[in-house]
Amino acid sequence: MALAAPSLPAPSRLSQIGADDVEALAAGAAIFGTGGGGAVWAAQRITQRSLREHGPVELIGVEDLTADDAVIMMSGIGAPTVGIEMLSSEDQASTLLREAEKVAGRRITALMPAEIGGSNGVSPLGWAARLGVKVLDADGMGRAFPEATMISPNVAGVRCEFAVQCDVVGNVTVAKTIDLHWLERHARAGVVASGGICLAAHYLLTADTARGAVIEGTISRATLVGRALLAAERPVAAVAEVLDAAVLLTGKISDVARRTEGGFVRGSVTVTGTGADRGRLQRIELQNENLLVLEDGAVLASVPDLISIVDAETGQAISTELLRFGQRVAVLAWACDPLWRTPRGLELAGPAAFGYELPYQPFERTRSR
Amino acid sequence: MALAAPSLPAPSRLSQIGADDVEALAAGAAIFGTGGGGAVWAAQRITQRSLREHGPVELIGVEDLTADDAVIMMSGIGAPTVGIEMLSSEDQASTLLREAEKVAGRRITALMPAEIGGSNGVSPLGWAARLGVKVLDADGMGRAFPEATMISPNVAGVRCEFAVQCDVVGNVTVAKTIDLHWLERHARAGVVASGGICLAAHYLLTADTARGAVIEGTISRATLVGRALLAAERPVAAVAEVLDAAVLLTGKISDVARRTEGGFVRGSVTVTGTGADRGRLQRIELQNENLLVLEDGAVLASVPDLISIVDAETGQAISTELLRFGQRVAVLAWACDPLWRTPRGLELAGPAAFGYELPYQPFERTRSR
Repeated sequence: MALAAPSLPAPSRLSQIGADDVEALAAGAAIFGTGGGGAVWAAQRITQRSLREHGPVELIGVEDLTADDAVIMMSGIGAPTVGIEMLSSEDQASTLLREAEKVAGRRITALMPAEIGGSNGVSPLGWAARLGVKVLDADGMGRAFPEATMISPNVAGVRCEFAVQCDVVGNVTVAKTIDLHWLERHARAGVVASGGICLAAHYLLTADTARGAVIEGTISRATLVGRALLAAERPVAAVAEVLDAAVLLTGKISDVARRTEGGFVRGSVTVTGTGADRGRLQRIELQNENLLVLEDGAVLASVPDLISIVDAETGQAISTELLRFGQRVAVLAWACDPLWRTPRGLELAGPAAFGYELPYQPFERTRSR
Repeated sequence: MALAAPSLPAPSRLSQIGADDVEALAAGAAIFGTGGGGAVWAAQRITQRSLREHGPVELIGVEDLTADDAVIMMSGIGAPTVGIEMLSSEDQASTLLREAEKVAGRRITALMPAEIGGSNGVSPLGWAARLGVKVLDADGMGRAFPEATMISPNVAGVRCEFAVQCDVVGNVTVAKTIDLHWLERHARAGVVASGGICLAAHYLLTADTARGAVIEGTISRATLVGRALLAAERPVAAVAEVLDAAVLLTGKISDVARRTEGGFVRGSVTVTGTGADRGRLQRIELQNENLLVLEDGAVLASVPDLISIVDAETGQAISTELLRFGQRVAVLAWACDPLWRTPRGLELAGPAAFGYELPYQPFERTRSR
C-alpha cells in the first residue's frame, strides 16, 4: 500500500469561480464525489456556458455573511444513472429558487452545494450565475453521501425547516417533515414520482446558523485539487499527494454488480491488481457512493472516510454509474472531515448507517498497518 | 330487471349535521361510495364522537358563500385496507388546516368532502366540528372515484392550485404540480412514503370559483338516502326508490377476484341470481369502486353512472375490500350527476378512462331495454 506524502498546508481560498475554473472544479468535485454526486461532464459543460454568459460568481466565506443574508443548499437528488440522460431544464433552478423564497418568506442571497462531490459540487456555480446570487464557499458533506440525513447541519443540530423539490417539467413539492429520516422517505418518493431526478433546496442558513453547520472552503479545495490533477505528469500520485491519500490498489475492474433500486444505485465492484499489485483483489461496496474497500476479509477503508476510484492514467474519478469491466483504475482513500468522526457524525454516516455491522476504524489506522 | 319508482322531488337541504345524523349520513355515503371511498364504520364512530363533543356543524350552500369565504376539499387518500387499522391522529386535521392556510395565505372558513362516497363523505363533518369551521353541502364527485383527476373542478376547468397532505405522525407535504396527472403520481408516492394513508386538502374554492365546480347538496342527499334506508322495512326497495335506481340482480356472491396493485384494489366480483333471478349471472368489474356490470356479454351499467352492491337484507352498501363469497346481495345502479355526462366528464371518468374500450351508454337507456 503506497504511503501518502505529508499533508499540505490548508489551501488558500478563492474569491470567485469563472468559466475557466470549471474544468478544475469538476475534476476535483469528481474526486470528492467518491463515486457519487453524479458524473460531472454534463454539469461541467452547462456550468461553463452559464459562467461565460453571466460572468464569474463571487465566492464568500461564512465570515462574510451579514444579517441580510439567507443561504440555501441546492443539489440534484436521485439516481445518477437517470441523471446521465435526463438533464435539468433551463428554468428549473429559477423555479426552485422562487418557490424556496415563497416558503422561506424572504429573499435568498446565496447558494451553496449540499455536497461538493460530483456534479452537485459543480452545478450550483452555474445556477448562481444565472440567478444572480453569491455562492458560499462551503458544502454540507465535504464529499458526497446518498441520504438526506448525512449532512453537516444535521450533525450540528440545525433543523431542516423546509425542503423544496422541482422536477424537469415544473412540478414543485415542499416537504416539512418531523425529521430527516422522514424527509429522506418523502424526498425519495417524490424523486421516483418525477422520473428519477429532481433539483432540491434544503435548509435556510443565516450568518448565525451557518457557522459550525457547514464544511468550509470546499469549493476552493476541490478546485485546487482539480488544478493539481490537470497540471501533473503523474496525476494519480499528484492527487494522492494533495489529498494526503493512500493508493490502496492499482489494477483493472474485473466485475461490476450494479442495480438501480429504490432511487439508488447499489452493488459492488471488484478490482484485480496489476503490475506491482498483481495477485491482489479488492471489492468496493457502493450505494451511489463508494462505501467500503475489502481485501482478504479485512476492511481497508470505510465511510465516512473517502474512497475514490480514479482512472489509472488520467487520475480522473469514475462515478459508480460509469464503472465498467476492464477499466484501468487506482483506488484512493483518505480521511474525512473531523465533523464525521464525532459520535453524531459516525451515527449518521458510519458503516452501521449503511447496514454494515462493522466498527469504524479511522483510515489512518488501517493504512499504517 | 326491476323498474325503479319515478324520481322524487329534489331532496330538501339540511341546515346542519349533528351526532344523531351521522348514522344516516354514513349509510348514505356508503351507498354513494359504489364500493370505494373506504368503509364507513370507523369514520362513523369517530365523527359521532366529535359532533357530540363539539356540537352540530353548520351546512351552507354555494349561494351562502361570501367574499370572505375560502373552502378546501378534505379527504383521506390511500389504500382503504390500510385505513381499517391506521386511524387519523387527534391533531392531524388541524395540522393540515394550519398548513393549508399558510400555503393559501388566507383563513379557510369551510371544508367540503372531495368525495361524498364512503368514509370520505363522513369524516369531514367531524373534522369541521373540531376545527370550528362550516361545511359546504357539496362534494367533488357526487360519488367516489379512485383517481385525483376524476373531480368536478377538473371537469369545470378550475385549476388545483395546491395539494397539502399530512400523515399520522405529522409530516406535511405540499405539491404544486403542472396538472392533476402529475398530482396523482406525487400524491400517491407521498401516501406510500407515509405508510399508506394521508389526510389531504385540495383546491381552494371561493364564492366565485365554487359555483359550477362542485356537486351541490350531496351531504344532505346522502343523509336523506341513509334515513330512508334505516327507516324502511324493505331497505333495498326503499333505497332504489329514493335514488331512482334499478335493482339489476338479487343473488349471492359466487366469486371474488381481487388484488392490491399500484395502490389500488382491482378485480371483479361475480353475483349468481337467486329467487326470481335464479339462472342469471352478473360480473362487476372494479378499481376501488365498482366500474361495470356485465351480463351475457352486455354492459348493463358503467361508470360514471353509479353501481352499488348492497346487503340484500339490510340494504347497507358493501365496500369492495369487504366483498366475500356467499354474501347475499343486491346490485343497484342509477344515473350519475349530469356533470359526468358532459364530453369532459366522460373523458375523465367514462369507461375508456379506466381502460375499457366501450362507448358509454347512459344508464336509463340500458335499463329500459
